Amino acid sequence: MLAAGATLLSPPSARSQTANLTLTAVPGVKVGHHTIAERPTGCTAILVEGGATAGVDVRGAAPASAETDLLKPVNLVQQVFAISLSGGSAFGLDARSGIMRYLDEKNIGFKAYGSINVPIVPAASLIDLNVGANPKIRPTADCGYRAAQAASTAPVPEGNVGAGTGATIGKSAGSARAMKAGIGSAAIRMPDGLIVAALVAVNAAGDVIDPATGKVVAGGRTENGKALADARTLLTSGAIRQPARLGENTTLGVVATNAALTKTQATKVAEMAHDGFARAIYPSHTMGDGDTIFALATGTQAGSADVSRVGALAAQVVADAIVRAARQATSIPGYPAARDLH
Amino acid sequence: MLAAGATLLSPPSARSQTANLTLTAVPGVKVGHHTIAERPTGCTAILVEGGATAGVDVRGAAPASAETDLLKPVNLVQQVFAISLSGGSAFGLDARSGIMRYLDEKNIGFKAYGSINVPIVPAASLIDLNVGANPKIRPTADCGYRAAQAASTAPVPEGNVGAGTGATIGKSAGSARAMKAGIGSAAIRMPDGLIVAALVAVNAAGDVIDPATGKVVAGGRTENGKALADARTLLTSGAIRQPARLGENTTLGVVATNAALTKTQATKVAEMAHDGFARAIYPSHTMGDGDTIFALATGTQAGSADVSRVGALAAQVVADAIVRAARQATSIPGYPAARDLH
Repeated sequence: MLAAGATLLSPPSARSQTANLTLTAVPGVKVGHHTIAERPTGCTAILVEGGATAGVDVRGAAPASAETDLLKPVNLVQQVFAISLSGGSAFGLDARSGIMRYLDEKNIGFKAYGSINVPIVPAASLIDLNVGANPKIRPTADCGYRAAQAASTAPVPEGNVGAGTGATIGKSAGSARAMKAGIGSAAIRMPDGLIVAALVAVNAAGDVIDPATGKVVAGGRTENGKALADARTLLTSGAIRQPARLGENTTLGVVATNAALTKTQATKVAEMAHDGFARAIYPSHTMGDGDTIFALATGTQAGSADVSRVGALAAQVVADAIVRAARQATSIPGYPAARDLH
Repeated sequence: MLAAGATLLSPPSARSQTANLTLTAVPGVKVGHHTIAERPTGCTAILVEGGATAGVDVRGAAPASAETDLLKPVNLVQQVFAISLSGGSAFGLDARSGIMRYLDEKNIGFKAYGSINVPIVPAASLIDLNVGANPKIRPTADCGYRAAQAASTAPVPEGNVGAGTGATIGKSAGSARAMKAGIGSAAIRMPDGLIVAALVAVNAAGDVIDPATGKVVAGGRTENGKALADARTLLTSGAIRQPARLGENTTLGVVATNAALTKTQATKVAEMAHDGFARAIYPSHTMGDGDTIFALATGTQAGSADVSRVGALAAQVVADAIVRAARQATSIPGYPAARDLH
């Protein structure tokens, strides 16, 4: 049914200079990056200091995560206070401790006992240890603390920053033919006030596809390194028999909305948001990816939300954010970015 | 890495007259439909009488299913002998009993005790009760028995047959603006002998999108009923606030491969196959869809399979099958098909 007075909004790709169309479009959400200079890696803190109902869906087969068990709908805690995303594989989960410290200093957290608050900070990491010279350099608790200190409600910086600093894509034909990606973020503001936004650190085995056209934005290159090979062709022709190797991949996402969702509903939104991974990454959710999406609902919008609508919009902004992550990245040695591939 | 001598195969859409590019391309898999004349509904029997290792992933929020608990990797039974797909919502699960009777008469099943064999037949149903005049007409055990009797290794008939007889799509803007879909099937045969195939009964709330171009194949129509409205535009503009209503939707799929997979690996393949739903249906996996995919591995191909490869190919053939389901369908009163919409 057509709602009276509905108007077609500009798609997120046609950004005005003023509207914030990133994750911080959702009131109550702050984002900060810390980028490490010694090796391409870093971490990103997503703060919801007022608390947000949360869910998670881990669809990749090789995740690195923490505090995801408490997000199961049957479990006690209903709200989180931050999400930690980082490079550094399982080592990078340490960034979470720094975000906890930052929140603990402000006495923000789950009211566990008397005046004791425990900051609930679910975390996930992507593996970028193979990028750059020294795999011993990884995000630490200090990285997380600095990212939390840097967090603000400003539009989220994209590209080679934070958890996306060492992120690469298009490894189906081997990392020697890969490209650079990074952090992308997108948001949609509906006429009735609903806001749904996403931030994604894109470090996939697969290529990034623009679902609006079916075209590859960035991904595995041809053998001479000068053109896109198209993972779809490589896979279906039999040119590659192992589309995802281990130790190279994982895409991490956070979706946020001002809708009022239960924890169970937030979990469903996280599930549906993975459709954005499927649409914008090919292949996705492999044995070599640890693909994980967290969903945050701040609940400031009055009225009950239609979960299918929020979830479908979440999938949309996730796909938009992935395309932006490829387009906003900049080249590093060995990994050209879409903007530099001619 | 490029395999020596790899050649680019024709895509499944460019079918020769001779190659079987449907689910029965996998040796050991038979498919039979039974279509009910009194109301647009029916059922489909997928037989693997020699047994196949199986997995399932239920990603929609409104499923109707049976014998899916035993498919959890930790549970005992490793192989199934058929899958039952049907219309008729939860009523239609009765079709399964007829397939069991057919297999029981041949003494095919899980060796439960002495000479006692129990045919393991997981089942899922889609809701088509709202299509046609009499919702009391539903697939029964007799339907399942007849579908099993009709099963063969011939290329699978597509369109308005079997479980897809009453299947419709594009209900985001209401069922009055929906279109007809049905059964679609696709397969890919790799140079090294790996075969991955899919059969899908497409009864989605969403539109069917061709992921190769980003264009709508069939789905919700404009208010005058003469053109495609594009669910993506309806959703992101705010024109619709409830993209999926209850009681109208569910897409069912079966993927099959000749690869040797464990039950756990088959489960992962079923999970990855859902990326085909995400790519070819918009929106997908909503609260009003009971989207379910079964995976069958016959294991006749020697050597260990790369699970990411099988899963990525499964997602590909699932998307191909969905596009075919929209293109092969024929119009019924109230529901035009893609081939008839001008």
